Amino acid sequence: MVKLSGFMNEPLNLSQKLGFSKNSKLLIIHADDAGLSHAENKATIESLKRGSVNSYSIMVPCPWFYQIANFAKENPQYDYGIHLTLTCEWQSYKFGPVLSVKEVPSLVDKNGFFFKSRKELLENADPKEVKLELCAQIDRALLLGLMPSHLDSHMYSLGISEDFLTIYQELGEHYKLPIMLNKALIKEISGNPDLFIDITKNALVDHVILGNYEAFKNGRLADFYEESLANLKNGFNLLLIHPAYNSSEMKSITENHPNFGSEWRQIDLDFFTSKTCQEILAKNQVQLITWEEIKKCYYL
Amino acid sequence: MVKLSGFMNEPLNLSQKLGFSKNSKLLIIHADDAGLSHAENKATIESLKRGSVNSYSIMVPCPWFYQIANFAKENPQYDYGIHLTLTCEWQSYKFGPVLSVKEVPSLVDKNGFFFKSRKELLENADPKEVKLELCAQIDRALLLGLMPSHLDSHMYSLGISEDFLTIYQELGEHYKLPIMLNKALIKEISGNPDLFIDITKNALVDHVILGNYEAFKNGRLADFYEESLANLKNGFNLLLIHPAYNSSEMKSITENHPNFGSEWRQIDLDFFTSKTCQEILAKNQVQLITWEEIKKCYYL
Repeated sequence: MVKLSGFMNEPLNLSQKLGFSKNSKLLIIHADDAGLSHAENKATIESLKRGSVNSYSIMVPCPWFYQIANFAKENPQYDYGIHLTLTCEWQSYKFGPVLSVKEVPSLVDKNGFFFKSRKELLENADPKEVKLELCAQIDRALLLGLMPSHLDSHMYSLGISEDFLTIYQELGEHYKLPIMLNKALIKEISGNPDLFIDITKNALVDHVILGNYEAFKNGRLADFYEESLANLKNGFNLLLIHPAYNSSEMKSITENHPNFGSEWRQIDLDFFTSKTCQEILAKNQVQLITWEEIKKCYYL
Repeated sequence: MVKLSGFMNEPLNLSQKLGFSKNSKLLIIHADDAGLSHAENKATIESLKRGSVNSYSIMVPCPWFYQIANFAKENPQYDYGIHLTLTCEWQSYKFGPVLSVKEVPSLVDKNGFFFKSRKELLENADPKEVKLELCAQIDRALLLGLMPSHLDSHMYSLGISEDFLTIYQELGEHYKLPIMLNKALIKEISGNPDLFIDITKNALVDHVILGNYEAFKNGRLADFYEESLANLKNGFNLLLIHPAYNSSEMKSITENHPNFGSEWRQIDLDFFTSKTCQEILAKNQVQLITWEEIKKCYYL
């Protein structure tokens, strides 16, 4: 049953469902890519413990998955989801599916690793195998005792086609988890503004905020974050970051890939553990929310 | 055909087969565990390029396999083998088989990762699955274009039982690669001095030299190496080390495992890239040999 607000029998928006006034600035500061590496795990934990990050998501097929999974289980106070993974963008640091290459041959390159780009994925992947692999990722997390609050998609590759987007939504419904959906991002990635999104099952993200390469190159990434937080719009804002240490490990992983590379990730860590960040949030009457609260609106 | 030396028709020993006098001090300084991590790869490469290490072996199921495999292909001047892997001794940094859990269920714990100890492996592993998985590891390396000079065994787990040792020898024969065999090590690990070893197919290692925890704890690991090199015996000596950087990544991998842990591995790197090490080798008339040369004696 759709809850109604008093005035004109208008349905409650997400803000109201969560107990805030209609025109609030809701925000999740979300760390993607947990499980990717040591530097990523350490920085993610740091930015949850002493920073402003209040949600993160975990890559099941990655080498440091088990460590972050144990952290998640031991620290249920921090909101976390599953970062569904179908691509590996790095040059030398490669990972592949949870299932065997024989089970999902269309998801891997000639060496048995995930494709680097969404484009290669789309050209090769059999949607049936996409669904099999993603179920296996979620099942593996559940088997380890994880209780994720949401699903999202690494490199947003599930937004690239109608088939993939359908699978994404089916997974959300099947596992009773909210999924990260944003119309602008889907349009940008698929080139199609009209892909079907079931808004009765999901709270759409109104504004996804993501650092851009231009700002990074010009040394203005922290400024970009500062300005973004100072100028949040009303509605559901999701700020996606990738905190990691600019260590030898992380430099090697992100070799020849400065976009979301090691330096970038250190800036993310630094800014979102800074006092400046805390102060801007306090000054601008931002309502920090979590995926767990959204999950309760839709699935509990 | 067995080559014979002139005197008494005695068969040539390894030293003579390699073109040295009968009673030479042959030595391979061998870095295990390449592919394990960034810190391990970087230090292994460093100790090959500017140190005294002259052979190494690669762990196919590990996260940094692809990077070190590319290094190996691009640098055929450095001798390398496959470090057959059936165990993962670390607490939070876990890896499992190349094959799927469904294909080799007896090789993994409840979370789908390799067992931590040889004992658990022996209690659970179906030898058929051991062979399947190890073939898959070697095949994966070959598929990537690697041309290994030898096979050895992580934690020497293939020395633990007659079944395992038989598989190990069968793999050597099948892939036409020498395997690392040492009677004392097999006796120590299996508790059985009489396991079958086919000496017509393999050059037995006369003396395996491996740092010990006592020396490490007492701050005497480098001294142990120095003394070992100064007192090498005649015959085929194999010095096994594990160079890595004592970095944040490596500390996390080896958490609660000081034996062959992060500090230990930094000492290995430091000593085997030192001038002291070079000088001792020069002073003691050591003949550095490689597995590739041994391979030529037995399989080419």
